[in-house]
Amino acid sequence: MIRDLILKNRSYRRFDESAVMDESTLRDLVDLARHSPSGANLQGLKFILSWTPQKNAIIFPCLRWAGYLKDWGGPEAGERPAGYIILLGDTDISKNFGVDHGIACQSMLLGAVEKGFGGCIFGSVRRDELRKQLDIPEQYEILLVLALGKPVEQVMVDEVGADGSIKYWRDEQAVHHVPKRALDDLIL
Amino acid sequence: MIRDLILKNRSYRRFDESAVMDESTLRDLVDLARHSPSGANLQGLKFILSWTPQKNAIIFPCLRWAGYLKDWGGPEAGERPAGYIILLGDTDISKNFGVDHGIACQSMLLGAVEKGFGGCIFGSVRRDELRKQLDIPEQYEILLVLALGKPVEQVMVDEVGADGSIKYWRDEQAVHHVPKRALDDLIL
Repeated sequence: MIRDLILKNRSYRRFDESAVMDESTLRDLVDLARHSPSGANLQGLKFILSWTPQKNAIIFPCLRWAGYLKDWGGPEAGERPAGYIILLGDTDISKNFGVDHGIACQSMLLGAVEKGFGGCIFGSVRRDELRKQLDIPEQYEILLVLALGKPVEQVMVDEVGADGSIKYWRDEQAVHHVPKRALDDLIL
Repeated sequence: MIRDLILKNRSYRRFDESAVMDESTLRDLVDLARHSPSGANLQGLKFILSWTPQKNAIIFPCLRWAGYLKDWGGPEAGERPAGYIILLGDTDISKNFGVDHGIACQSMLLGAVEKGFGGCIFGSVRRDELRKQLDIPEQYEILLVLALGKPVEQVMVDEVGADGSIKYWRDEQAVHHVPKRALDDLIL
């Protein structure tokens, strides 16, 4: 059931870094993105894959982790992502990628969850640094980064409380809580 | 397998209009969107549902159908969508919805395919007309429209040919062909 997969697909930020990712897994995920909708079928997305400790170590510091957790700078060594997929927009094909990269991320995350992995979409990226470190040509706009690994954290979906806050938070057991708005509040 | 669902989820534009959609089905789909990733967990999307012939008839002419099929103005009566989900951005929550609406559409489309339906995402929408006809307050930005129904057309994924064209086309049997770039061409 797609619903089970969507419910299991939480934004995970702590992983078992020893559970390695390989190129074949990442290629499978990109192939899911390849078969997902693309505005005017332009297919302007390109992908950089990372699954080695060396390349992962370059990408990791280019990401800004969990804006609402002010006391947490990101996962410690050992709990960092085992792989990444960098989503680029090829400006030789289009100057506007619409929501193609969102669609692609959701397909790839659902594929990852089905394989026993999980991940988190990063829009907050040190793009200049990432471009420099990986020598990404100016032709490619850096859109999003998908961080992937085998999750070691528990994520709970809660109802938005009386204060109306949607900020995620962690309890004493390091369980990550994510307040979601009620269905009736989303439908006009 | 999520791959099967993603492969089956083509952009369908001709439907069996007699296969009716109901409110409960559409609400189930929005609940999939509700549990999908949202940038900074802001959850700024709102949804308008349509499943009655009267409301469907208002929405249909506000959509621009299949830009590459110059001789086709959209589906005839009897092959039109049985329902719609209009994705809005609530500007009281955010001014920038990132790719939330793309993520939401992919979740809802996969849910629709699993239920035996299918659909098409519309970014090309007569927004002023739609706003006026449905009396949508200015607070809500019209982001996308998802058209849904029981598909009656066959859609084939082809490889991009030697001419490099990604324009979809229809053959003599009205089979819809969609050229997709090769996986190796997407990975840098």
